Amino acid sequence: MTRYALALDLGGTHVRAAVVDEHGHVLRAVRTRTHAEQGPDAVIERMLALARQILEQRSEDERILGVGVAAPGPVDVASGMVMHPPNLPGWGTVPLADLISRSLDVPVWLGNDANLAALGEHRFGAGRGVAHLIYITVSTGIGGGIIVDNRLLVGAHGLAAEVGHMPLVPEGPLCGCGHRGHLEAIASGPSIAREAQAAVARGWKTSLAKVDHPLRAEDVVAAARDGDQVAREILARAGEFLGRGMALLAHLFDPQRFVIGGGVSNAGDLLLEPARAAARRHVLPAYRDTFDVVRAQLGDDAGLVGAAALVFDMVG
Amino acid sequence: MTRYALALDLGGTHVRAAVVDEHGHVLRAVRTRTHAEQGPDAVIERMLALARQILEQRSEDERILGVGVAAPGPVDVASGMVMHPPNLPGWGTVPLADLISRSLDVPVWLGNDANLAALGEHRFGAGRGVAHLIYITVSTGIGGGIIVDNRLLVGAHGLAAEVGHMPLVPEGPLCGCGHRGHLEAIASGPSIAREAQAAVARGWKTSLAKVDHPLRAEDVVAAARDGDQVAREILARAGEFLGRGMALLAHLFDPQRFVIGGGVSNAGDLLLEPARAAARRHVLPAYRDTFDVVRAQLGDDAGLVGAAALVFDMVG
Repeated sequence: MTRYALALDLGGTHVRAAVVDEHGHVLRAVRTRTHAEQGPDAVIERMLALARQILEQRSEDERILGVGVAAPGPVDVASGMVMHPPNLPGWGTVPLADLISRSLDVPVWLGNDANLAALGEHRFGAGRGVAHLIYITVSTGIGGGIIVDNRLLVGAHGLAAEVGHMPLVPEGPLCGCGHRGHLEAIASGPSIAREAQAAVARGWKTSLAKVDHPLRAEDVVAAARDGDQVAREILARAGEFLGRGMALLAHLFDPQRFVIGGGVSNAGDLLLEPARAAARRHVLPAYRDTFDVVRAQLGDDAGLVGAAALVFDMVG
Repeated sequence: MTRYALALDLGGTHVRAAVVDEHGHVLRAVRTRTHAEQGPDAVIERMLALARQILEQRSEDERILGVGVAAPGPVDVASGMVMHPPNLPGWGTVPLADLISRSLDVPVWLGNDANLAALGEHRFGAGRGVAHLIYITVSTGIGGGIIVDNRLLVGAHGLAAEVGHMPLVPEGPLCGCGHRGHLEAIASGPSIAREAQAAVARGWKTSLAKVDHPLRAEDVVAAARDGDQVAREILARAGEFLGRGMALLAHLFDPQRFVIGGGVSNAGDLLLEPARAAARRHVLPAYRDTFDVVRAQLGDDAGLVGAAALVFDMVG
């Protein structure tokens, strides 16, 4: 009898379900669009339908130990509640773990999606065997998860590791949260796209001027890969601030490794080299050779396999 | 048979030794001047003499489980080495735990002094029963210690919780470490004294102008207590940045409590009220009512009783 976890990932655009084994292998997976605007009841019904669908395909020797759910933060881990997630407008406070548990009649554990992605990378990805690591996802927002001594840091109320909201430039660009100069307001995908739009508007010589849709971070990454100097400088600037954030985190957590995921990390060393250089420049000498900076390995699956890892951790 | 720990505190100005029981009570203590300029051999000999002196006074029923040593960081906890401490110039790398252990023939554990002060406050002071707390000492420098889930965060190399070196103002005042705008460069004792000197030099109306020695932070605290408005504003500004630092730490660690120690914390609410207000202003809404900010309770003994707590933790 092999042991499995059912993993659910509640994202802003997609809901996903997967059966995952103890080695982090995804046995089978299904997905559907979230349609968050329809409100929690409809979305949860859709999640439950996915879960049932994937459970019905189960073979005889599949033992499902429980359900792990990756949900947008803030999440109250102890009570299994989603707490007014900014990425699911209008959701308020939802006892998600309880609702799923009652409907499927299995134990359910809930975690913040970026936290669980960190757990996934730690157990099955770029952080295997690394006892102290910090995962940062650079995407529409910037989130993270922190592993201290092989354990996920959740904090007193499940609110730890909010790395996107480190203030780096006091009077810097406005962040989605209403404060200024946070890492997310400088180095996230939309911030990179905004810099690119500004460069085009200023008439700088760049292939981005020829893009015939609203610029996205992917366009900047693609142009930088093709050697576009303006695109490279925009990514280097985002990397510089990502590196300053890592320096700050190194002083506080003393990790061995930073794992960088999320769509913008597809830029690879165009983002990470400036980040490494800035991190080394901004740390005290004692920290200079204490960590490395690598790309995440699990891509979009990180949250799913992290949710499964949470189940295996809890069941023991 | 009562269990005790021998605690040693290697400070920049004093070396101290004490016998501490499992409730954090200091049974007896001795101290001498460090004279760090005489180099490690002389200082360690002086520490050992203190240790022997206090051990000789031992009664029959005193069982010493081991020695805990609070030393200036950076400290390599695993190997018991002091690593080029800035507060002990010329020390280089010293295998302090080993030297003490061989001389006294007892097990020895070493920790960063600010980290151990946090452990002391957690076990026996203002942080009792608080599973997630951050201790910040505001003194000649700014250091700290972080308790995650009732355990001291040391990091991969014993370098965690360096809270004095969070960058808060990119082009701010020069820090002792060579970078600019770190919390320590804005809110430490010497920084407060420097602000006071500048205020006097500008001819501002303040009782500090009448002080007939080089201004120290204590003078500013005393003047503020007496109602001096300029002194109050200087402390409020230090508190403002301390609060911004706490907001940053709240996003990362999600603690229930901040415990503020060190000489400057004698300012009490003249420092802490502006800090609380700034912390609340700079956190995301979800964090606003998740922590409180209190003064440390153990004063200068925090490191000593924390070193003893380390011994009891290790012996189990």
